[in-house]
Amino acid sequence: MAAKDVKLLGASASAYVNRVQFALNLKSIKYEFLQEDVFNKSELLLKSNPVHKKIPVLIHAHKPICESLVIVQYVDEFWSDAPTILPSHPYERANARFWAAYLDDKWFPLFRELRNAKDEESKAGVLGKIFEGLTLLEGVFVKSSNGKGYFGGETIGYLDIVLGSFLGWVKAAEIMAQLKILDETKTPALVDWAERFVSHEAITGIIPEPEELIAVLKDFQAKAAAAAASK
Amino acid sequence: MAAKDVKLLGASASAYVNRVQFALNLKSIKYEFLQEDVFNKSELLLKSNPVHKKIPVLIHAHKPICESLVIVQYVDEFWSDAPTILPSHPYERANARFWAAYLDDKWFPLFRELRNAKDEESKAGVLGKIFEGLTLLEGVFVKSSNGKGYFGGETIGYLDIVLGSFLGWVKAAEIMAQLKILDETKTPALVDWAERFVSHEAITGIIPEPEELIAVLKDFQAKAAAAAASK
Repeated sequence: MAAKDVKLLGASASAYVNRVQFALNLKSIKYEFLQEDVFNKSELLLKSNPVHKKIPVLIHAHKPICESLVIVQYVDEFWSDAPTILPSHPYERANARFWAAYLDDKWFPLFRELRNAKDEESKAGVLGKIFEGLTLLEGVFVKSSNGKGYFGGETIGYLDIVLGSFLGWVKAAEIMAQLKILDETKTPALVDWAERFVSHEAITGIIPEPEELIAVLKDFQAKAAAAAASK
Repeated sequence: MAAKDVKLLGASASAYVNRVQFALNLKSIKYEFLQEDVFNKSELLLKSNPVHKKIPVLIHAHKPICESLVIVQYVDEFWSDAPTILPSHPYERANARFWAAYLDDKWFPLFRELRNAKDEESKAGVLGKIFEGLTLLEGVFVKSSNGKGYFGGETIGYLDIVLGSFLGWVKAAEIMAQLKILDETKTPALVDWAERFVSHEAITGIIPEPEELIAVLKDFQAKAAAAAASK
């Protein structure tokens, strides 16, 4: 597949963009990365995703596909040769989709709550929920990996991609809140899994360093505050 | 498939439960319907969906599957004979998933906003967004139905099921707000589609009458208020 047929509109600090990069790399699809600026969106982005005006957008053969989970499933279905991303059995597929939705809708939003927590008590409450989620996921990992290295078994699968895309922001949160979130005394299998995941040849080099993510976040917050003040 | 192998934990007023019923009917799968009470959840529900504790839950061969969109895809993938629910081409599948997520995450929540609107101005604002969504969907319908009767073409597909599951609540909202939402002067193709959809043999009789939905909503609001007051 020539790079000109596959374009990804994104920004490297976005976990949702990173997961599309993982999927494309796993399938050995070359693509052109078009850097977007959230405060100055390109005409191509506005035209390609008029409903949400958000990254990531994959443009394949001139047709736009939006929403990260939709894109990852598209990549798996269009380039259907191995390695496959979704599990093959319908029940395992349903489980992977269930936990992916849980991570996006319930678990990752807790990190914003953690940043916005007003006092130590509310911070501890949010942290408790984050750990609760990780404990659930540790259980899912032990069951679905079946003694192998990934949620998907021997190869990286859908749930690896979804949870894995948040690993940079988890590290950033650990630095900002000065505590351990992926803690080997609490979720040892996930700690091992995370090291294995980020070292995989299709993944390594995509997730920015936590210091870079923190800088991006601070820059975003400053610009958002300035934009709000000028209204 | 014997009914004892397939159980659906639900309540008939739930659009999310209705869509699972549509999918099972379309595939001619017999199932046992286990009525749930949101204020007194069964042990089976709590055990089957410990994360969200919500209906619908499909229990197939003793294994629970949760979240309506996950269940509909499971039904399509497990009972993979025709009629198929998801389109066959990856790009059309991606489009159907994109619009299903839009309906669940952005469009249907507007109906709660409409009910809670404090004054005529905010009500008009919400209504404008509801119509905007319907206009987008009218465009999607015209394109994807390709001159046939459904979003899925000749047969009912994923997006038919998702939008169709909300038709009872749209009618209820029309009565409560005393106005027309599915309006043939605004979205004529969708008005025709809706009539066709609810008359289909796999769909008819599942969606409760709007008066019944309004009664369920009032009962729910009264019980929720009483529960909040007793805390």
